[in-house]
Amino acid sequence: MSAAGMDFQPELPVLGLSVAVFSSLLNGSTFVLQKKGILRARTRGVSYLTDLIWWIGTVTMALGQIGNFLAYTAAPAVLVTPLGALGIPFGSVLASYVLKEKLNFLGKLGCLLSCVGSIILIIHSPKSENITSRAEFEEKLSNPVFLGYLCFVLLMLTLLIFWLSPAYGKKNIMVYIGVCSLLGTFTVPCTKGIGLFAQDAFTKNPSSSNSTYLFLCLLAVLGCSILIQFRYINKALEDYDSCIFSAIYYVTFTTIVLVATAILFQEWTKVGAIDFLAMLCGFTTVSTGVILIQMFKEFNISFRELSKTPEKKE
Amino acid sequence: MSAAGMDFQPELPVLGLSVAVFSSLLNGSTFVLQKKGILRARTRGVSYLTDLIWWIGTVTMALGQIGNFLAYTAAPAVLVTPLGALGIPFGSVLASYVLKEKLNFLGKLGCLLSCVGSIILIIHSPKSENITSRAEFEEKLSNPVFLGYLCFVLLMLTLLIFWLSPAYGKKNIMVYIGVCSLLGTFTVPCTKGIGLFAQDAFTKNPSSSNSTYLFLCLLAVLGCSILIQFRYINKALEDYDSCIFSAIYYVTFTTIVLVATAILFQEWTKVGAIDFLAMLCGFTTVSTGVILIQMFKEFNISFRELSKTPEKKE
Repeated sequence: MSAAGMDFQPELPVLGLSVAVFSSLLNGSTFVLQKKGILRARTRGVSYLTDLIWWIGTVTMALGQIGNFLAYTAAPAVLVTPLGALGIPFGSVLASYVLKEKLNFLGKLGCLLSCVGSIILIIHSPKSENITSRAEFEEKLSNPVFLGYLCFVLLMLTLLIFWLSPAYGKKNIMVYIGVCSLLGTFTVPCTKGIGLFAQDAFTKNPSSSNSTYLFLCLLAVLGCSILIQFRYINKALEDYDSCIFSAIYYVTFTTIVLVATAILFQEWTKVGAIDFLAMLCGFTTVSTGVILIQMFKEFNISFRELSKTPEKKE
Repeated sequence: MSAAGMDFQPELPVLGLSVAVFSSLLNGSTFVLQKKGILRARTRGVSYLTDLIWWIGTVTMALGQIGNFLAYTAAPAVLVTPLGALGIPFGSVLASYVLKEKLNFLGKLGCLLSCVGSIILIIHSPKSENITSRAEFEEKLSNPVFLGYLCFVLLMLTLLIFWLSPAYGKKNIMVYIGVCSLLGTFTVPCTKGIGLFAQDAFTKNPSSSNSTYLFLCLLAVLGCSILIQFRYINKALEDYDSCIFSAIYYVTFTTIVLVATAILFQEWTKVGAIDFLAMLCGFTTVSTGVILIQMFKEFNISFRELSKTPEKKE
């Protein structure tokens, strides 16, 4: 409660926030640039590996991922994760200019909603971090509630991968999305942890052998989850429309990651009831925006047509 | 700026707010109840004037209008006007149960957005009123900026009614919507003024003859604007789809009324930059919700169908 949410200037993690927003925009422009490069190369009859724009896109992707990684170190995960959505409207607008891909009326509304929801998220985000050092991170990791949650997630993953996925994977989009989203429980905290370890390595005394062991462990878990995520994303893209998949995936992934980071980092403890409610509203708005952009891409709807139709009232 | 936005409990006009929300819900259920009554009467082969539900609907309408009137007296107009949108999702959900009118996926998203946006509006609404008495209202009315704005609106109205409406009214939906929305510049401040006069009449000394004159003047202006509004709404409904009309009308009307009340009541002067930004976001979210509910009513879109379509990725 109290005044925590409104003292904008002094407490907001401006640097982390800027990095988060900037890397979202970079990530959003990646595919547009790469596709432009591929199309350009095709018209000239050469490989896209010789195309400058394709390479710019690839470098952008690398920079975006590094930025995202840094953002998790400098700002709360409850802020960085949902802000990842900003790349989607940016990419759509860019695609409509660079690739001349038409953005329909629902897509435009979606872009507006994503931006508006992100502003609400930023206004109400937790202003101070609970975790700023490796030691704190290690302490939080042994929290029994988090360990219990981890066991639950592992159980669900086993169920999804070995039973539901072969049986229902091709019929229900939520199976593959479930696997990929639940893996976010590992990837995001691992990323944050590795970031903190890296920070410590630069600024403090050399870490103990115990810590090095944990660091390698985090790297291994991150590597595994990314590989499994990658495999199931591709399985999903084989059977379902990529735009629809990415919209539902964003909402499910972000929700599960927010729950996991809330349990691990307890970032919510510094958030008042009003800020919590407002962040929920902001997240709902961003999610709806993403759904409108992605799920209705193929619809041929323009505002002009809708408002022109002269129908008689019944 | 400061902490104004977050001290929820002590300053929020809870009574006015509750009345505003409650009367929006009443207004939203009016048409559903009346239509149910008409349909019920039709199946029994009697006039709907003998139907109980139709009468409940009509009483609800009267109560909703009185509630709306009271809300303008007890809460800032910048809050009451956009909250009027809450009736639309409520009416849609009610219609889907009572009238078995199907609410499609976009309609459901729209309902969610209207609620979420309203929460943001409420959280960031101005907590104290600039105008609480008749004397203050009279003072604000003679503000030269407001008088200038009134002249501008009158000029626009003359242009729209006598030139654009006959020439382009049947071709462009914005002409009739423009007339009805600009008239909101008169109706909402008049409603607020009449409410304050009524309040004064009950609590204070009898007003001077000058004030009585102003009161009658407000009543006359209110009556005229409602009549013209009524005429142009019906003109629009003859030529355009009612759902599409009501969606665009809500957005335009609310925007223009907010500008007019901002100039007249200067309610914005007590709102910080962050609250202003957040209210803008909330209003955008509510407007998008209304557009999604109303403009896409005829579309046959369900989440199940969208997510099931197994298309191969290119």
